[in-house]
Amino acid sequence: MDWSQRRALVTGGASFIGSHLVDALVERGATVRVVDNLSSGRLANLSGALESGRVEFREGDLLDSDTIREAMEGVDVVFHNAADHGGRGYIDLHQVNCSTNLILDGMVFRAAEQAGVDKVVFASSGCVYPEHLQTDPREVLYLTEDLVQPPYAADNLYGWAKLMGELTLRAYVTEGRMKAASVRYFTAYGPRCPESHAVMAMIARALTDQDPFVIWGTGEQIRNWTHVADIVEGTIRAAEEVDDGSAINIGTMERTRVVDCASEVLAYMGKTVDFAFDTTKPTGPYNRVCDLTVCREKLGWEPQIDFKSGLHSTIDWYIANNDATAVAGSLEQMLTERRHG
Amino acid sequence: MDWSQRRALVTGGASFIGSHLVDALVERGATVRVVDNLSSGRLANLSGALESGRVEFREGDLLDSDTIREAMEGVDVVFHNAADHGGRGYIDLHQVNCSTNLILDGMVFRAAEQAGVDKVVFASSGCVYPEHLQTDPREVLYLTEDLVQPPYAADNLYGWAKLMGELTLRAYVTEGRMKAASVRYFTAYGPRCPESHAVMAMIARALTDQDPFVIWGTGEQIRNWTHVADIVEGTIRAAEEVDDGSAINIGTMERTRVVDCASEVLAYMGKTVDFAFDTTKPTGPYNRVCDLTVCREKLGWEPQIDFKSGLHSTIDWYIANNDATAVAGSLEQMLTERRHG
Ligand SMILES: NC(=O)c1ccc[n+]([C@@H]2O[C@H](COP(=O)([O-])OP(=O)(O)OC[C@H]3O[C@@H](n4cnc5c(N)ncnc54)[C@H](O)[C@@H]3O)[C@@H](O)[C@H]2O)c1
Ligand SMILES: NC(=O)c1ccc[n+]([C@@H]2O[C@H](COP(=O)([O-])OP(=O)(O)OC[C@H]3O[C@@H](n4cnc5c(N)ncnc54)[C@H](O)[C@@H]3O)[C@@H](O)[C@H]2O)c1
Repeated sequence: MDWSQRRALVTGGASFIGSHLVDALVERGATVRVVDNLSSGRLANLSGALESGRVEFREGDLLDSDTIREAMEGVDVVFHNAADHGGRGYIDLHQVNCSTNLILDGMVFRAAEQAGVDKVVFASSGCVYPEHLQTDPREVLYLTEDLVQPPYAADNLYGWAKLMGELTLRAYVTEGRMKAASVRYFTAYGPRCPESHAVMAMIARALTDQDPFVIWGTGEQIRNWTHVADIVEGTIRAAEEVDDGSAINIGTMERTRVVDCASEVLAYMGKTVDFAFDTTKPTGPYNRVCDLTVCREKLGWEPQIDFKSGLHSTIDWYIANNDATAVAGSLEQMLTERRHG
Repeated sequence: MDWSQRRALVTGGASFIGSHLVDALVERGATVRVVDNLSSGRLANLSGALESGRVEFREGDLLDSDTIREAMEGVDVVFHNAADHGGRGYIDLHQVNCSTNLILDGMVFRAAEQAGVDKVVFASSGCVYPEHLQTDPREVLYLTEDLVQPPYAADNLYGWAKLMGELTLRAYVTEGRMKAASVRYFTAYGPRCPESHAVMAMIARALTDQDPFVIWGTGEQIRNWTHVADIVEGTIRAAEEVDDGSAINIGTMERTRVVDCASEVLAYMGKTVDFAFDTTKPTGPYNRVCDLTVCREKLGWEPQIDFKSGLHSTIDWYIANNDATAVAGSLEQMLTERRHG
């Protein structure tokens, strides 16, 4: 696909994942508009992209009718990444805020159709999978896309909003109104990821020499942490290959326990501390790893970065960009809020 | 409750149910604002209410940020009745349109909280109940509120939006941000009801001497048609009695088959025709009747109008207000669209 002929809108493009997506689109020659209200995104995330001269940044709230209409003008493809979203501590404890994604997603799709946008690629999530399938960390289970079918059991209003977004987009396609794809991201990590997400929280705890080092839950939780570079590559491939509104997992098939991730963080950073397990804290499901059959088939590709090397380079990035004293001062707030400092 | 001290907003107040609700609130002395885009509502439905001098009508689209903000100004209680909605033919065949209720409901709740509204009463629906429970018309089943629990299986994007509305409102209450109640209406009928709903469709078929008289599905479908006067009484009682965001069935426990309703319509109107069953048409679930335990307990009341007498007075109203030739000219369109003529 010749991206140099395409004008993309990235909603929430100042975010962790959004900004990497903007970088990747610019690299491919696309013209990119970003609309972000900076509620959790940061303009600094876009500093490289803005230098290209092919990125237009607009600070604005996409829940405003005028802002969203203007955002769509002249756009071929929308990457809808804006969301009221955070790590586990945030989405478990801020249900009303997360419910506003029901508004936001519907408005984005509707405005896109009204503006004649060709395709919408929706940042969905592993949170659409039924919670009751994900309770036993000893079970070797890879979530296949078709496990999301009625009756549904998404993860919190955050997950329900993602599911409704997927269903709505599919209805647009079925009614011949728009092309679309949903990409189900599994727990992303990498440079620019905020500390409300587990991997970054662990790096921050280690950097500040937290002792005992607190782990939320038993530490047995299994995740398939996926590097943001892979998340972004999968997203662009979905934009290129998928029109039919179907949903595709983007994540690795590596099964890593939280406690093993913590050990690796501490080992790489040369710290020796004790663990304290706080089982009163939100943990999310205990067993969440995706299957990649559909991803391989439809995108002719799968995530490339193994967790250990991705983790090491992320730690290097975090150390280079953060000051231990500053992090220590706002660590608690960082863990459950979208914004701090 | 002293309604003369209360300022109510009825979203979608020019609709079938909405306009009866406005009438009832005016009768109780409330000051009422109606905001309706007249997409299916009709100003004529409000002609009586407007004469009271205590009703302000604003034509406007509540999907517009400014309109919705202004709608909430100075309001104590919101009755949220606006929806992209129609009879079975409409909601089965217009999924994208119905999905916009996800936007609308979220915007209404959010704007209500931002304006300091005390309470929101949400017009939910029997469509939130799991479809797989409602398949066997021979089973004597009364849907209790607690049958709506994860995993969920709502009826179409219309039903999913109602369910998300309920969950969102409950989150507002849980987080101490607003008082709320959801009222699950079961298939309403009565004066001002459009022909896209089954009872009115049957009356219209009879008035135009349709022969054979078409019934969608096998005619075995069981419904608890509920007169709009009861729907409205239950809604106002919920506004008075319920703060905790819970959902309450508003419907009768009378089990009536579609084919028996058709026979009664024809008998009362003195017509003799043959039935033709069109099983290619949308029917909705085959067994939908509610339980009233919670309604009786929380509202100290239950629907009062038995189906036969409510049906007869509705037929009288329809005949007095419609011309057979005009109805014949637009009957087909009436059955699946929100607007006609
Ligand atoms: N990070 C993950 O592990 C993960 C996993 C699954 C899905 N996702 C999804 O991927 C997307 C990006 O995630 P992220 O981790 O980079 O999260 P994020 O919360 O940082 O990204 C959301 C972005 O949207 C912006 N935004 C929020 N509301 C807005 C509004 N009303 N108007 C304009 N901008 C608004 C925020 O400022 C932020 O830049 C989100 O949709 C998220 O739900 C992320
Ligand atoms: N009629 C039933 O049997 C039934 C059953 C269950 C629930 N309900 C619910 O009760 C409510 C009223 O139902 P009704 O049968 O009177 O339906 P209706 O479709 O006639 O009512 C909806 C009203 O909202 C208005 N509206 C729609 N979108 C709007 C927007 N964006 N801005 C402003 N106004 C808008 C319409 O013009 C109409 O007056 C709806 O929420 C419906 O979903 C009805």
